[in-house]
Amino acid sequence: MPGASARHRVVVVGGGFGGLQVVRKLRRAPVDVTLIDRRNFHLFQPLVYQVATGALSPGEIASPLRGIFKRNRNVRVLLGDVTGFDLEARHVFVDLPDGERGRVVPYDSLVVAAGSQYSYFGHDEWRELAPDVKSLENALEVRRRLLTAFEAAECEPDEDTRAAWLTFLVVGAGPTGVELAGQIGEIARDTLRRDFRMIDTRAARIFIVETADRVLPQFPPRLSGSAERALAQLGVTSLTSHTVVDIDAQSVALADVAGKHERIPARTVIWAAGVVASPLAAQLGNVDRAGRVSVGPDLTIAGHPEVIALGDIVRVHDSDGNAVPLPGLAPVAMQQGRYAARAIRARLQGRTPPSFRYRDKGNLATIGRAKAVADVMGLQLSGLVAWITWLFVHLFYLIGLQNRLLVFIRWTFSFVTRGRGARLITGSSE
Amino acid sequence: MPGASARHRVVVVGGGFGGLQVVRKLRRAPVDVTLIDRRNFHLFQPLVYQVATGALSPGEIASPLRGIFKRNRNVRVLLGDVTGFDLEARHVFVDLPDGERGRVVPYDSLVVAAGSQYSYFGHDEWRELAPDVKSLENALEVRRRLLTAFEAAECEPDEDTRAAWLTFLVVGAGPTGVELAGQIGEIARDTLRRDFRMIDTRAARIFIVETADRVLPQFPPRLSGSAERALAQLGVTSLTSHTVVDIDAQSVALADVAGKHERIPARTVIWAAGVVASPLAAQLGNVDRAGRVSVGPDLTIAGHPEVIALGDIVRVHDSDGNAVPLPGLAPVAMQQGRYAARAIRARLQGRTPPSFRYRDKGNLATIGRAKAVADVMGLQLSGLVAWITWLFVHLFYLIGLQNRLLVFIRWTFSFVTRGRGARLITGSSE
Repeated sequence: MPGASARHRVVVVGGGFGGLQVVRKLRRAPVDVTLIDRRNFHLFQPLVYQVATGALSPGEIASPLRGIFKRNRNVRVLLGDVTGFDLEARHVFVDLPDGERGRVVPYDSLVVAAGSQYSYFGHDEWRELAPDVKSLENALEVRRRLLTAFEAAECEPDEDTRAAWLTFLVVGAGPTGVELAGQIGEIARDTLRRDFRMIDTRAARIFIVETADRVLPQFPPRLSGSAERALAQLGVTSLTSHTVVDIDAQSVALADVAGKHERIPARTVIWAAGVVASPLAAQLGNVDRAGRVSVGPDLTIAGHPEVIALGDIVRVHDSDGNAVPLPGLAPVAMQQGRYAARAIRARLQGRTPPSFRYRDKGNLATIGRAKAVADVMGLQLSGLVAWITWLFVHLFYLIGLQNRLLVFIRWTFSFVTRGRGARLITGSSE
Repeated sequence: MPGASARHRVVVVGGGFGGLQVVRKLRRAPVDVTLIDRRNFHLFQPLVYQVATGALSPGEIASPLRGIFKRNRNVRVLLGDVTGFDLEARHVFVDLPDGERGRVVPYDSLVVAAGSQYSYFGHDEWRELAPDVKSLENALEVRRRLLTAFEAAECEPDEDTRAAWLTFLVVGAGPTGVELAGQIGEIARDTLRRDFRMIDTRAARIFIVETADRVLPQFPPRLSGSAERALAQLGVTSLTSHTVVDIDAQSVALADVAGKHERIPARTVIWAAGVVASPLAAQLGNVDRAGRVSVGPDLTIAGHPEVIALGDIVRVHDSDGNAVPLPGLAPVAMQQGRYAARAIRARLQGRTPPSFRYRDKGNLATIGRAKAVADVMGLQLSGLVAWITWLFVHLFYLIGLQNRLLVFIRWTFSFVTRGRGARLITGSSE
């Protein structure tokens, strides 16, 4: 095989926001980089929910990894499923697309940026009943369910059943849950308003359930208030201080803080709560309740200065051993990715890298048309200014001019026509 | 239920090119129209193969049917699967998305435009091994197989297996097969050229198999020659006068006219041969070998002046009872759709509609970058002029300004960068 060399070998696991930055910042370094991902594309995670609502198409928020690095001859992309590590022998084990299991990929430096997934709090049977919007496949399944619910209501003669088809429930009121619930509100009130003849889509009921006592608990309370009012304007009822206790194909049971139970008939339930780290984190050391492995101030795992972990799979500790709370956001992973590349270059030159330090860029969430909240640079913004900020930040961080243009066109048409062009029902119900 | 009326009820089955024109031309007529389709969108069939090659995203060539007719209060869209007709009672039977089977939809006039599908010549077991590119779901499955083949080759140590992963075979050299084979050639030669480190994608072998003695047998022989040369330039070998006799997961067996058999190791096989009418045609009367029902010069079926059938499911006969050969193209279905609407309006006014007459708009096929053939208005064109004609005709017939813009941007980027932005591997191999 060509390309065998004595150069320092860096293996990066995961082509998300963190992993991508590591590779980008190493592409001119005297190292050989292997980027391993299960998917052949980088996915712009913060907009996946817009695929679920038909506002965007999958291809518009995904960029093929090989295309990003095709001009960097020291970067190799390997499509495969990392199944584990041998930290002593410095090996990664990968299942490959031709069916081979456990291919050994050796490294000198390892960066693990495997990301997170949704936890169903021990209720894995809910996964099927209430899909999340993490992967493109799931987003398309949610899109199918959302749109089919309106279709089923249109031809349903029984009033109660029709009402259940027109009831939508989102679990979790972080940014993804809030944005999703807001978009369902817009679909019912604007996009589909004139599409049906038998039903009034504006009669749809939309609930967002949150265990905390306010929506967007990551934001300052004043912005949570703005967000809740914006949601209400779109017909979304916020059920804060409520917990999901049961889900079946027809309904969801909730408990409030007093322990009182209530069952809401709803045929469409979407999950956006309880983030846990990728199971790969547990292969790097002891993990906390959220499945995250501890790393030091230089993001390395205990006893292995050649192994860096970052992003949603880690809990960072400072030099005194205290945990540094960091949000599970793209900017954190991206800054850690750039730091990881710098740290590897420093170590190659015999230098000790300084500690990782997070620069808080703030927090953004959009609720709907000209409705958003932003907590940036000490400013708490809501409404149109926050919304425009949200739009430009997201367009800016999308990979590639083509995707930026395509998304910009989709958003412009949605804004002008209140439509959602990609509202296709695809895939099968089986 | 609202909307019940004594107005003439028109039921249109199928929202393809034909059905869409019927409804469009009836939206200002004093009739109630119900458009029934299994899918909630109109699909621009001639570009589906570009989804399979990652050049376009599904949402860019599909338009939600409800959105198209949302302002036409006399048009109702019903998402459902038509299972049969009672021609005497004037009923259509429909399975609905809420699970109801056999809902009765009554009509005064019926238009059936149910389209076609690929026949596997009695070998339904090949359907899984060699998917077609008719539906969006199939196109995404073909995209997954195409791109995974290169990924598998990249990590495959065995030379013969690697060569089989890098061998692609398209069955059928009509426009879809030729355009698909040409695009696979471009993917291997241009798009992916710098994406891999272990394999040279330009070594990929691409075959197109055709029973006739030339590619594009619908075109004048001179243009078939141009197309075959253009294919050869893209590395595509045309195996004309060859028939597929067996397909398994690793290879395809072919027979030539002399009956000599040959087996080609190929891991990716795509089907684009043998069009047959929708099974619904057989519910309207006797069908021919291609599954098409006979209709008279006014497109009605025998004994039922209130039932029109059109598009790929019919064989038209003139007033002397002779079959009129018409190609299975979008313009035929569209002209027949407009005719059907005029005929229904005429009959409502007590007039007898004149016979349907097809105005031949010509025939177009693209092979690749600046390579196409066109047989229009007595002119036989090939090369750049034909290609530009092809581009503009397809952009013009796409539904909606948004999709036209999105597709235009995709094509512009593909032309400039030789890339294909939507080359994602999605879905599962299970």
